[in-house]
Amino acid sequence: MTTNHYRRKIYLEDKPRLEAKNEMIKHFRPKREVEWLESTNSIGRVLAEPVFAKSSMPHYHASAMDGIAVVAEQTYSAHEQNPIQLKRNEDFIYVDTGNQVPSPFDAVIMIEHVEELNEETVEIIEPASPWQHIRPIGEDIVQEEMLFPQGHIIRPVDIGVLLASRTLTIPVIKKPFVTIIPTGNELMDPGDDIAPGKLIEFNGTVIANYISEWGGAPQLNAIVKDEPEQIKATLLKASEQSDIVVINAGSSAGSKDYTVHMIEELGEVFTHGVATRPGKPVIIGKINETIIIGIPGYSVSAYLALEWFVRPLICEFLQVSEPKRLMLKVKLGRRIVGTMGAEDFIRMNIGFVAGEFIANPLSRAAGVTMSLVRADGLLVIPPTSLGYEQGEYAEVELLKPLEEIKNSIVFIGSHDLTIDLLSSEMKKRNRSSSVMSSHVGSLAGMMAIKKGEAHVAGIHLLDPESKTYNKTYIQRFLADKEVVLYPFLKRKQGWLLSKGNPLEIKTLADIRNKEAHFVNRQKGAGTRILFDMLLRESEMSVEEIIGYEREMFSHLGVAAEVKGDQHAVGLGIYPAAKSMGLDFIPVSDEHYDLLMTKDFYESEQGRCLIEVIQSVGFIEKVEGIGGYMIEKNPEPIYFNSKCEG
Amino acid sequence: MTTNHYRRKIYLEDKPRLEAKNEMIKHFRPKREVEWLESTNSIGRVLAEPVFAKSSMPHYHASAMDGIAVVAEQTYSAHEQNPIQLKRNEDFIYVDTGNQVPSPFDAVIMIEHVEELNEETVEIIEPASPWQHIRPIGEDIVQEEMLFPQGHIIRPVDIGVLLASRTLTIPVIKKPFVTIIPTGNELMDPGDDIAPGKLIEFNGTVIANYISEWGGAPQLNAIVKDEPEQIKATLLKASEQSDIVVINAGSSAGSKDYTVHMIEELGEVFTHGVATRPGKPVIIGKINETIIIGIPGYSVSAYLALEWFVRPLICEFLQVSEPKRLMLKVKLGRRIVGTMGAEDFIRMNIGFVAGEFIANPLSRAAGVTMSLVRADGLLVIPPTSLGYEQGEYAEVELLKPLEEIKNSIVFIGSHDLTIDLLSSEMKKRNRSSSVMSSHVGSLAGMMAIKKGEAHVAGIHLLDPESKTYNKTYIQRFLADKEVVLYPFLKRKQGWLLSKGNPLEIKTLADIRNKEAHFVNRQKGAGTRILFDMLLRESEMSVEEIIGYEREMFSHLGVAAEVKGDQHAVGLGIYPAAKSMGLDFIPVSDEHYDLLMTKDFYESEQGRCLIEVIQSVGFIEKVEGIGGYMIEKNPEPIYFNSKCEG
Repeated sequence: MTTNHYRRKIYLEDKPRLEAKNEMIKHFRPKREVEWLESTNSIGRVLAEPVFAKSSMPHYHASAMDGIAVVAEQTYSAHEQNPIQLKRNEDFIYVDTGNQVPSPFDAVIMIEHVEELNEETVEIIEPASPWQHIRPIGEDIVQEEMLFPQGHIIRPVDIGVLLASRTLTIPVIKKPFVTIIPTGNELMDPGDDIAPGKLIEFNGTVIANYISEWGGAPQLNAIVKDEPEQIKATLLKASEQSDIVVINAGSSAGSKDYTVHMIEELGEVFTHGVATRPGKPVIIGKINETIIIGIPGYSVSAYLALEWFVRPLICEFLQVSEPKRLMLKVKLGRRIVGTMGAEDFIRMNIGFVAGEFIANPLSRAAGVTMSLVRADGLLVIPPTSLGYEQGEYAEVELLKPLEEIKNSIVFIGSHDLTIDLLSSEMKKRNRSSSVMSSHVGSLAGMMAIKKGEAHVAGIHLLDPESKTYNKTYIQRFLADKEVVLYPFLKRKQGWLLSKGNPLEIKTLADIRNKEAHFVNRQKGAGTRILFDMLLRESEMSVEEIIGYEREMFSHLGVAAEVKGDQHAVGLGIYPAAKSMGLDFIPVSDEHYDLLMTKDFYESEQGRCLIEVIQSVGFIEKVEGIGGYMIEKNPEPIYFNSKCEG
Repeated sequence: MTTNHYRRKIYLEDKPRLEAKNEMIKHFRPKREVEWLESTNSIGRVLAEPVFAKSSMPHYHASAMDGIAVVAEQTYSAHEQNPIQLKRNEDFIYVDTGNQVPSPFDAVIMIEHVEELNEETVEIIEPASPWQHIRPIGEDIVQEEMLFPQGHIIRPVDIGVLLASRTLTIPVIKKPFVTIIPTGNELMDPGDDIAPGKLIEFNGTVIANYISEWGGAPQLNAIVKDEPEQIKATLLKASEQSDIVVINAGSSAGSKDYTVHMIEELGEVFTHGVATRPGKPVIIGKINETIIIGIPGYSVSAYLALEWFVRPLICEFLQVSEPKRLMLKVKLGRRIVGTMGAEDFIRMNIGFVAGEFIANPLSRAAGVTMSLVRADGLLVIPPTSLGYEQGEYAEVELLKPLEEIKNSIVFIGSHDLTIDLLSSEMKKRNRSSSVMSSHVGSLAGMMAIKKGEAHVAGIHLLDPESKTYNKTYIQRFLADKEVVLYPFLKRKQGWLLSKGNPLEIKTLADIRNKEAHFVNRQKGAGTRILFDMLLRESEMSVEEIIGYEREMFSHLGVAAEVKGDQHAVGLGIYPAAKSMGLDFIPVSDEHYDLLMTKDFYESEQGRCLIEVIQSVGFIEKVEGIGGYMIEKNPEPIYFNSKCEG
């Protein structure tokens, strides 16, 4: 075990996030430089100075019509009873739209109102008023007028007025140069061969992309090992070359977390630890007048900390305001516990069900990047709050467009691989509609329908007595709810086994006898109910099963575990075994059905869902996987429907 | 005058915009191609197929702590009274965060809870539960799980899960290739020497930038002359090489508007003219199965038509939904007249004054690009509506972030060049605060304060009787309003004359006597009031002044006119003459003051405005221009203040 003299300096504060930010901003001495860019190449850039028009637009009196240019005064007596004849190049000239109207002409008559008598003469029967149908000099842009103030961010239309006024180069603020330093002995490049104990470095790339998006110029350093001297040398060099330095991981207080000590040796540390969950192990310091931000290794913490501390620096550098996200009032589907004395940032799924926005928390683990990928919103629990009760309302920051959330089908319940295909097919058919699925098991899915939190639940609940699926459960648990059970498919459940079945398992008894490591599913999952029934039927107890308490949340989760352990076995569906290259021994055919609110089933989206399910393309895709049989045009079963005969 | 056989085919419909769009979409046969990209290089791209994880993350059981990996079962008896000793590499191994926890170990104990007796032996006094402090295989991502559905747009965080799951390349929809063809004899490249009758081609560059922003791959063609055969050849070639073709101008029904005829000869025209103002002369057709959109020449019409027709095609091609803008309910500061039978698109300024969003229309001229640059929102008047009355509420599409609008200082009234400097300085000091100025003249500015539509008005209203500025007007017109008059600056008004003063004008009488072309200001402008007073004092009538009826809306506008005409003269401020290189003969020193609502004057923003005005930097800048003297720390004058003693 590595120990060293840095070990004893461990400390981690719980500094309020905004206090840490304001302190950081006070220390920030941006060295802004002005860069002159071609206007055509300036989209998204920030003006360093106000910009004034170099030329008027139009820069001459321009005809706004096809017609003739005249001297208005000479036309005043024209009348139907008193036509006036005009001589070409003396009394008038022909002009097309955009042509110059030269002095002394001061009005344009539309060609439709001109009688052309011959090549040289025209006749008019209406007077022209001075300056009619003329775009005067500077109608759009007047030379020397301020087009944009300092700080303006260039949009496509702005390039139009820049070019039109012949303002061909503009001064913009040079992008802040941000060096990103990934550190860690366990890190390897994405293309390298992977090995246990090694993790792919991906935070750096994500950070670089965020920094670009916010207007910075990121440079991703090579991976640096957890060696104090290497980290020190890299930090020093980066601080000399960069406007901001982001160092990823090593920001906690473990034995190899050298970052804070290195910054202290080279400069100054303002903050080590902010009062947030996740995201606590943040370091803010300074080397050579350059701000150094140490952000946590776990991806969710890393990206949140980046937004809290690095984005404000970039905005400060560019002198633009920080963009704010839309807030949305949501009803909470579950109780959410906060951390006293710290802000909690909870990634939330939001569904629009029965006219209300219902939000449920995703995984709170700081290492679960998918929780951020899947999140529709972010719930921030202030440090003084213990959290929220189920059913309470709260404001969440939206991470996705409201439209998208409003059009999502909230799918909850048991996990089946076909749901992903369904989601993709739905999006193909109606791009504004997407399926937002969360895997909580059949029973919890049914409860979500009961509570009005979801549109559709995938369930496969076997009643051990009647040996039927789903119906008895709905009768028992959803006595008052108008719901529809749509028979979706039959699928094969069976033993998931390492390739070649090294333990030679064929039955439940073999699992006990061969001391296999069983990988179980969470409580309420249909597959767990099936396994428990199998145990009861064999008169075995849970204590006889090694690993009974080890719970996974999906078939693929179980399959992945089995794949990683020669002694493991799980119960799951055939396609999970197939996609992981496992052996499979069928145990039962089960019904996996879709439970929907009646409202949803009868809605436009509901109809579309059924259409996709019954489409030849979808059926072929699903049955092509193997282990599936989709119900063809089944009769939906209505429960508790008040209008039913 | 050019005439030709196309002339007689003129027609322009008034087809409803959505009808034209839906018809176009029906004819669109996108030839989508799939492009495999490196995940690291895929920001903003649209997935052509669902993407599944190639590997789990973590892909091994990983320690979540620094500590020792143990077999949980062997620790169950540990207790403070019963410490257990474990042998290294037999009963435990050391692990750091991220290290693999190999079989048979199934739990991690944090290093803080381990007593290290010697190199080979540790002691523990607490049992470990199975799988504690272990990130199981697939905690974040399970191999084969669907990461994203088809149609998903890649964000920075998504690249994280792609790399983490070793999904290093992904299938995206190749960007639609859009050729943009600028046409017109009057067009020249931005760098070329300019001449009267020539206009800089800028629409094409703007269009290309919009198309990039929307996810297309634009290609800007060289400028094509108004020659039928050239246009035809270019259209034909573009239709063969592109997914979409945009041709700019020539879409109307003038003598050189060949576009519609060329499309008809090569293919088919669906629409010529949509029921919108501006934006009517749109052509939608098809050549070689490629949709051709002819958009109007006037920039505002062009960009609106682009959004109505080209953006939907790009979204359709990419199979993503069209982004929608936020809507905001505003109170209308003026009556706005609609066109029966057509949709009107009115560019609006929106200010947040006294707790209400007040919106006023900008120029409705289709050629005024600045109206789109300056617009905060877009008011769409439906074809069945005649418009809105002043004070009515209407929904507008927001073109700027709501925050920005909320923080803007609405400045209205007379134009002075220092207001632009003030705006830029304000933005520098407080980047979320900007000054939104519109030049309507002193009187109209005062009225806007009265109606609660603005925070600040710049006024310079000379009372001919008392020879004082502003005060008598406020007493007369704002009898009940609590306002503050802040003495801002004195400035020189005088005659603006062509360089060298060719007409040898020195006095008002010279203007009449030399038959100079006078360039006037609009009614209610302080400068116009001054001119009228000068006329009265000289006992001259308006009929004696050539050009009295020719009105410009700003000093720069007047100066630009004078610059373009050797016989012109105007009344205006010194800096306008200076910036345009004109001669200047002083006529009077006038007071240009700031009229504010009391609420605004006493607000945070108001204080900040005064601070900027009185800052050394601002004063030096303004007085450096010449012709200005800023009032140093003047006493503000309160009117109608209820709390005043």
